[in-house]
Amino acid sequence: VNPDLASERQTASFSVEKLTAWLDGGAEHTRIRRAVVEAIESDPVFSRENQYFQSQNERYEAAVRKAVHLQIKMREMGWTENGPESKYIYRALSGDFAFLLHRVFMRSIVVLGSDKQIAKWIPLATQYRVIGSYAQTELGHGTYLQGLETTAVFDITTQEFILNTPTISAMKWWPGDMGRSATHTVVFAQLYIHGKCYGVHPFIVQIRSLQDHSLCPGITAGDIGPKMSFEHTDNGYLMLQKVHVPRENMLNKFCEVQPDGTYVTRGTEKINYFPMTTVRISIISDEVIIPLMKACTIAIRYSVVRRQSKLNPGEQEAKILDYQTQQEKLLPQLAAAYAFHFINNYLQEQLDRGYKEVQRKNFDTLPELHACSSGFKAMVTQYCTSAVEVCLRACGGHGYSLLSGLPSLYTKILASCIYEGENTILLLQTARFLIKCFMAASAGQPIPPSVTYLAAVKPGKCPAKSKLDFLNPDIYIEAYQHTAVRLISSTAAKLQDIIQSGVKKYDAWNQCTVQLVQAAKAHCHYISVENFAETVEKLETKPAIQKIMKHLCDLFALHGIFSNAGLFLHDGYLSGAQMDMVTASYLDLLAVIRKDAVPLVDAFDFTDKSLNSALGSYDGQAYQRLYEWAQKSPTNKQISPAYEKYLKPLLHNTLSKL
Amino acid sequence: VNPDLASERQTASFSVEKLTAWLDGGAEHTRIRRAVVEAIESDPVFSRENQYFQSQNERYEAAVRKAVHLQIKMREMGWTENGPESKYIYRALSGDFAFLLHRVFMRSIVVLGSDKQIAKWIPLATQYRVIGSYAQTELGHGTYLQGLETTAVFDITTQEFILNTPTISAMKWWPGDMGRSATHTVVFAQLYIHGKCYGVHPFIVQIRSLQDHSLCPGITAGDIGPKMSFEHTDNGYLMLQKVHVPRENMLNKFCEVQPDGTYVTRGTEKINYFPMTTVRISIISDEVIIPLMKACTIAIRYSVVRRQSKLNPGEQEAKILDYQTQQEKLLPQLAAAYAFHFINNYLQEQLDRGYKEVQRKNFDTLPELHACSSGFKAMVTQYCTSAVEVCLRACGGHGYSLLSGLPSLYTKILASCIYEGENTILLLQTARFLIKCFMAASAGQPIPPSVTYLAAVKPGKCPAKSKLDFLNPDIYIEAYQHTAVRLISSTAAKLQDIIQSGVKKYDAWNQCTVQLVQAAKAHCHYISVENFAETVEKLETKPAIQKIMKHLCDLFALHGIFSNAGLFLHDGYLSGAQMDMVTASYLDLLAVIRKDAVPLVDAFDFTDKSLNSALGSYDGQAYQRLYEWAQKSPTNKQISPAYEKYLKPLLHNTLSKL
Repeated sequence: VNPDLASERQTASFSVEKLTAWLDGGAEHTRIRRAVVEAIESDPVFSRENQYFQSQNERYEAAVRKAVHLQIKMREMGWTENGPESKYIYRALSGDFAFLLHRVFMRSIVVLGSDKQIAKWIPLATQYRVIGSYAQTELGHGTYLQGLETTAVFDITTQEFILNTPTISAMKWWPGDMGRSATHTVVFAQLYIHGKCYGVHPFIVQIRSLQDHSLCPGITAGDIGPKMSFEHTDNGYLMLQKVHVPRENMLNKFCEVQPDGTYVTRGTEKINYFPMTTVRISIISDEVIIPLMKACTIAIRYSVVRRQSKLNPGEQEAKILDYQTQQEKLLPQLAAAYAFHFINNYLQEQLDRGYKEVQRKNFDTLPELHACSSGFKAMVTQYCTSAVEVCLRACGGHGYSLLSGLPSLYTKILASCIYEGENTILLLQTARFLIKCFMAASAGQPIPPSVTYLAAVKPGKCPAKSKLDFLNPDIYIEAYQHTAVRLISSTAAKLQDIIQSGVKKYDAWNQCTVQLVQAAKAHCHYISVENFAETVEKLETKPAIQKIMKHLCDLFALHGIFSNAGLFLHDGYLSGAQMDMVTASYLDLLAVIRKDAVPLVDAFDFTDKSLNSALGSYDGQAYQRLYEWAQKSPTNKQISPAYEKYLKPLLHNTLSKL
Repeated sequence: VNPDLASERQTASFSVEKLTAWLDGGAEHTRIRRAVVEAIESDPVFSRENQYFQSQNERYEAAVRKAVHLQIKMREMGWTENGPESKYIYRALSGDFAFLLHRVFMRSIVVLGSDKQIAKWIPLATQYRVIGSYAQTELGHGTYLQGLETTAVFDITTQEFILNTPTISAMKWWPGDMGRSATHTVVFAQLYIHGKCYGVHPFIVQIRSLQDHSLCPGITAGDIGPKMSFEHTDNGYLMLQKVHVPRENMLNKFCEVQPDGTYVTRGTEKINYFPMTTVRISIISDEVIIPLMKACTIAIRYSVVRRQSKLNPGEQEAKILDYQTQQEKLLPQLAAAYAFHFINNYLQEQLDRGYKEVQRKNFDTLPELHACSSGFKAMVTQYCTSAVEVCLRACGGHGYSLLSGLPSLYTKILASCIYEGENTILLLQTARFLIKCFMAASAGQPIPPSVTYLAAVKPGKCPAKSKLDFLNPDIYIEAYQHTAVRLISSTAAKLQDIIQSGVKKYDAWNQCTVQLVQAAKAHCHYISVENFAETVEKLETKPAIQKIMKHLCDLFALHGIFSNAGLFLHDGYLSGAQMDMVTASYLDLLAVIRKDAVPLVDAFDFTDKSLNSALGSYDGQAYQRLYEWAQKSPTNKQISPAYEKYLKPLLHNTLSKL
């Protein structure tokens, strides 16, 4: 181990192993997770060694190979879909892996299908007798599901739905696993019965032959080509020309077309969106927080082995993490990784509660759950994407090399801001909920638990008198709460004013959306800070961990105030002098947390293979590894034909004779 | 043309052709530029049609092919290096092009070489009898040039320098054109004479045979492998083992080693950094501003052909550019593209003046030029990188497809934040200059022209009384100036306080760097706003263009205040009520500029081939083009071997027999 990295580990203020166990939810979970990681990483089929050198075709083939091999592995290891190992498999594979949409296909059948449909399709899918996908998005429609153009017309004579792609913009576009792998997909289409449109419904459609994988009659499908990342995924397009599917293939737990064409609904059509809510929450951990934790691990380890320039003349060059600017780049991202790990726990609890209610056909909690999942999906993906980018840039030129692992983390996490709901749209949905709740609270009506603070608006000023006061969670939580309420209430007031001036409600809404987005973000930021502080409070039996978590919580909170100073200064809740105290405490914390920075990322417990980074490995031999890995690049495997063809004639001045 | 795009062009408030000509610096320039673009784009060798589907090896080969073919093309067209066409060639090629470092090689010889050296090497390089590179950065050192580890020991007996790479971290790493193409490179190494170190100096070193391109004795070199972009460039590594170069190969315009080992200096060693200053400024237009202009063109055109959701129920789905949130994403980026086009003109003038002084061996303007080029390089690259990312995200899923053209613009522009000086380091250099000037001004000493405002600090409050007052450039320029002065003076005061409390100067500096960076950014932001306003003022003979440019200038300024509200509210220079006026004016401007958004990007005058975007072409047929281009992807060219190997056994349940 590079001595510059080793020395960082000797002075940890807490036990790394204990922190890891606590993050995992107990030492037993850590043990299981490590066993899964060990089993996966010791199997050469799952190797990611050549990932940075592969083409899109090679990446796809490798992803399918791994997904198929995983079936064998699971049998071999005795792992099951519902076993304790299952949630660690994806993390251990580090994502370059096919058939994720197959899981969404299954989940949509479980949630939206009748018992009969579940009994038919889930065993087939579980045994991979079919490979499923989930075809919702079209070329012309992503966020606005009501605008989907694909049609499904019920033909009473044949008892079939006839699915059609009426325009080019109606082509399904983007569904994963669909471009080359899937045999079936859940197609969302406008249901027509006797010429009347009943809105968007899900249909199971076979798209490829189970015998030879050729496209079924009426199907045009393929791969949508290169993307910023996800080279391993065959995101696909799909055109349907008079494709017949039996009546039984409409997923009908909540609504059904009877043989005579009668449309029957059970429950609410809003439930169609429930799978998206669960997907939205489920991506946060594996696709968003873990990548940020990896980026922090790479950037922070590299920042203590990289020495550059001198803090004091005459001394050795300094570790770059000793520069305040580098600390200010990386440590807030580290604090955010922890903050969002805890928010993920919070969201999982909310989802579990909500799902239980839905199972009981109680849909009352859906609006709150939808608002909450939408806002946090947007806030966390946006925040973590920026954070990964900060980590990448903080590693300078070497961070820009694919071999650092950071570019692929960044280009992949960026997609999370777009898929499963574009973030601005999601924040506006949260804002709509907040405005509604604020109006209800103002009218003295009851409001859902997560927003009760809106009913208790207290004007006033921040009571802090010194920089140390800002290390009191009550002080900063109150500041966040005040700011969220102010933004929500002032935007509600603006909205009312515009409407009262005679502008139509929808236009008025549009004129407030920039501020509505701000308000929704402020709400989520407030909940994140409060949730972090509550998590820290519960740690009283682990004083060393509690202490460092308290520092991170303070840093997360004060970084947010420092970076959004205008929101807190606007109505004088904080004064300029208090903002200077915030800044002072914030900068002080950087120097404190810097001492534990390496132990704090070590606690995430990523293996070198899972980081797949020449810069971030446990031993800190960054330069050596960069050089070794570069040798393996295909660019060094042969003399480029460019020499004989172009360079030689140029240098030998025979160009004019060409 | 898509009618949704055509209609946007019918209502332009100004002549697009006149705006284009003005941006080009006159109609004659536009004519020449278009002729160059036409000549390049009509030549199939320069085609970028398959760019998004190519491997790193293919991209490199294509880049060399184009660079070599360009020599033929230039002869054919009668273009010369110093002719009026030359500055448009790179723009027309859109960058996927080799031998850029060859130009840096030549420039460093012209600036740092003696007349004799220029007479020897420049003709060779101009005729491509040698291909040059520029080897400064090492694995272990980027920003801290004094820390470079490569050594050049003068051997008096052979009259040679012996160059060596003493450690792995001393390997040259990153130089473009060096991994596979270059025959020569300028190596920066620590000069030793009689055991005494004289600091870093530049040496011309041959690395590959001119006969067969094999590596010269003592040379280890290759390609550093895959990067986030620049697949076409052979960024290389270089290890030197006792490589001998003649005494004449040290570039010696400003200092020389005489045959007896006497070290003679003429001028200042700071001049060694002058090539970096000129490169820093020269990249801003082609590598930073043009990519942002392209991203704006793609995103804004797409935003008027993309319809999603309804503003009012019962109406047609709305163009997404009609949503306030979409305007708020894109239009400030458009304003910034214009702002930085004008800042680039400002920097070019500064550079030309500075270069003339250096030619006359007057180095007095170097500190100001260095501070100015550093700060603006950092500010403009950072701003434009974020802006391109905003454009990418604003196009949703389709923006994430490589076929949109946006991912490659983003991954490439991101590098500009790192190369030619890491941005944080550069901003700190600017800050050092600002603090020095501020102290000098406080002591009544003279200060350079660009910072005279530091001498005229006026306390006070913003006098604006209504939102319309914030459309007065005097009002917002004053606010920016006030904020810059406040940040510089308060950080200077903090620095003094810490030093007076007994902390060492260097430690004190480190404790202030987060705020120093803020101060340097505020200075550059202020100059950008003022320069934009001055540019608008000079437009009085073109009233229609002046009017729309005034709107963009206002938007650029108010966006900056809105987004950095805390800086303006902090000391009460702006009140919360005034900030509400800023917000109101800012949001009003979005709706005004939205009407001219398409004409404003049309005026950048990019051809479809130069945009290379399925989303952003002039005719607005985005969906059709996405579908057509996807067909060409190698992922659709063949049945993947993954079917026979993995999918078929899985689906046919023969897996267990494998």
